Amino acid sequence: MEAQKSVDLYIEFLRTRRSIRKYRNEPVPLDLILKVLDVARYAPSARNIQPWEFIVVTDSVVKNRLAEVYPWPQPIRGAPVGIVVICDSKSSPNTYQQDCANSINYIMLAAHAYGLGTVWQGILRDEERLQVQRILNIPSEKVPIAIIAVGWPAEKPEPRSRKPLEEIVYINSYGNRVK
Amino acid sequence: MEAQKSVDLYIEFLRTRRSIRKYRNEPVPLDLILKVLDVARYAPSARNIQPWEFIVVTDSVVKNRLAEVYPWPQPIRGAPVGIVVICDSKSSPNTYQQDCANSINYIMLAAHAYGLGTVWQGILRDEERLQVQRILNIPSEKVPIAIIAVGWPAEKPEPRSRKPLEEIVYINSYGNRVK
Repeated sequence: MEAQKSVDLYIEFLRTRRSIRKYRNEPVPLDLILKVLDVARYAPSARNIQPWEFIVVTDSVVKNRLAEVYPWPQPIRGAPVGIVVICDSKSSPNTYQQDCANSINYIMLAAHAYGLGTVWQGILRDEERLQVQRILNIPSEKVPIAIIAVGWPAEKPEPRSRKPLEEIVYINSYGNRVK
Repeated sequence: MEAQKSVDLYIEFLRTRRSIRKYRNEPVPLDLILKVLDVARYAPSARNIQPWEFIVVTDSVVKNRLAEVYPWPQPIRGAPVGIVVICDSKSSPNTYQQDCANSINYIMLAAHAYGLGTVWQGILRDEERLQVQRILNIPSEKVPIAIIAVGWPAEKPEPRSRKPLEEIVYINSYGNRVK
């Protein structure tokens, strides 16, 4: 009974994470951010190489410069903290994108556990990458792949629509749908 | 007090997922696999495109053919179920690797919630991709990126070593370490 309750809690926990773009005007202690990043260390990575590094951005001048990399308004501008996730493309050339996505999932879920809201802003274009590397003095072989805005949620968004399960699941062969 | 207990439970939940490569000789109900995949729908994806599809492999002939794609022994051979994660590289050309990594994290964590063990086998080389596409009749524009073996754990591995936090975290600028 107790065990079933934990299962339900964990599933509910996974299902209730949302992207949060509005934050209360309230600081987030650095200690709490470090607790979140401590959990991110446990994300899986190919051959356990852990090709990730994290830059915690709390300085508002630096935050605003990061926000200006993009032509559209960035949640990080109004967030007390940003976390830039950097990946070593040399140590994990084939898997660094996936490995670092794993660490980002763990960051967002650990933050969710502590009641913090986050949103993932991808660093996708070469020009964005170069600008972020310049702003944060990141060596050229380390690839910044995302800026995670972090703060105490000031909104409670409904879940966004999801494709129905029967549309995306097959059994034993592509196209063979679940009855 | 109750709230703090939940936080601790969630963090413990995230920290205790392990890669499991040995499984009990016991079937996993398809319904339970569908519950796991139902949670995977809630993984985040760029612009909420959800470029993932899942093939549940329960047929042992198909499982063995998948295992033979690799030159080394594959956990999927001894697992009651495999889940092949496919990603649409056309709808999400820049983000499909990360988006699908998100869905895989949710699969592995949801399985962990239900007490199931999983391990992620990457499909990285072109030759592996082509073989998996052939075995499962996957259209050429859909990229299989991983085979997740799933089963009831028959081992309890210790956590693998992790880099210390202070080695991978910086404040406001690369190289500026946390005191």
